[in-house]
Amino acid sequence: MSDNGREAALYLDDLVVGARFRSGEFVLEEASLKAFAAQFDPQPFHLDDEAARQTLFGGLAASGWHTAAITMRLLVTSGMPLAGGLIGAGGEVDWPRPTRAGDILRVESCIQAITPSRSRPDRGIVALESLTLNQRDEVVQRLLAKLVVFRRPA
Amino acid sequence: MSDNGREAALYLDDLVVGARFRSGEFVLEEASLKAFAAQFDPQPFHLDDEAARQTLFGGLAASGWHTAAITMRLLVTSGMPLAGGLIGAGGEVDWPRPTRAGDILRVESCIQAITPSRSRPDRGIVALESLTLNQRDEVVQRLLAKLVVFRRPA
Repeated sequence: MSDNGREAALYLDDLVVGARFRSGEFVLEEASLKAFAAQFDPQPFHLDDEAARQTLFGGLAASGWHTAAITMRLLVTSGMPLAGGLIGAGGEVDWPRPTRAGDILRVESCIQAITPSRSRPDRGIVALESLTLNQRDEVVQRLLAKLVVFRRPA
Repeated sequence: MSDNGREAALYLDDLVVGARFRSGEFVLEEASLKAFAAQFDPQPFHLDDEAARQTLFGGLAASGWHTAAITMRLLVTSGMPLAGGLIGAGGEVDWPRPTRAGDILRVESCIQAITPSRSRPDRGIVALESLTLNQRDEVVQRLLAKLVVFRRPA
């Protein structure tokens, strides 16, 4: 697994199933956690620690969509250096455990499948599994994304 | 389909497959689109209209994760009045077309399946399809979410 932040951008031609990529880290501050929740997911367990203790989360927890957004930031800035950028057509996301204030997140990705487009020979779809882990190496999000990746121009 | 913002919170016992829910609306301002992208998805097609014209998006487009976050806001504030809140265990998300600056978004949801928990009789998993539509009734996101929903306390 390499720190690929310094590597050149990759085309579809450069990718192989099983290739692994590792992002930098992101520290989730409590103020950011609450600010995202206030804007996009205003529920007590994302806004107030005391109220959150009475819920399934057992304490203040980040919105899953905040974890997803941080994951995207890590992928874009250091986790997956694709030529043409990271363009997702969709995917599956699961949050096996909560992200907490103070967590230090990173993303470890692995290419699961590469499917050249039949109708558009300049591109393909890459299935990328990205696990978002905290500082205890616990998985807080599993994302299986379908990415549009371009071939190297002739 | 009802404007359920004024209805009482719903328990698992109140839900039936096929039930539909409709959210209020959210106007995506260009400044918000760019601010989200700068924070979580800093790529040219989400930040700069001129640069975006040269890409697959054909012009400035919101991050898919921004569309997802706005969808969550609409569901939480007006789209799905669940007792105990909207707790997602995960789901599948697709973005069939871009969300643009100035778009007016709303969410239309339909219960696809209800699965009582075998190990925890106080709850179940609800599969909810939520379509996020723009002002031209075009689907910009399809989300199939697995929600944890509680039974009415005895």
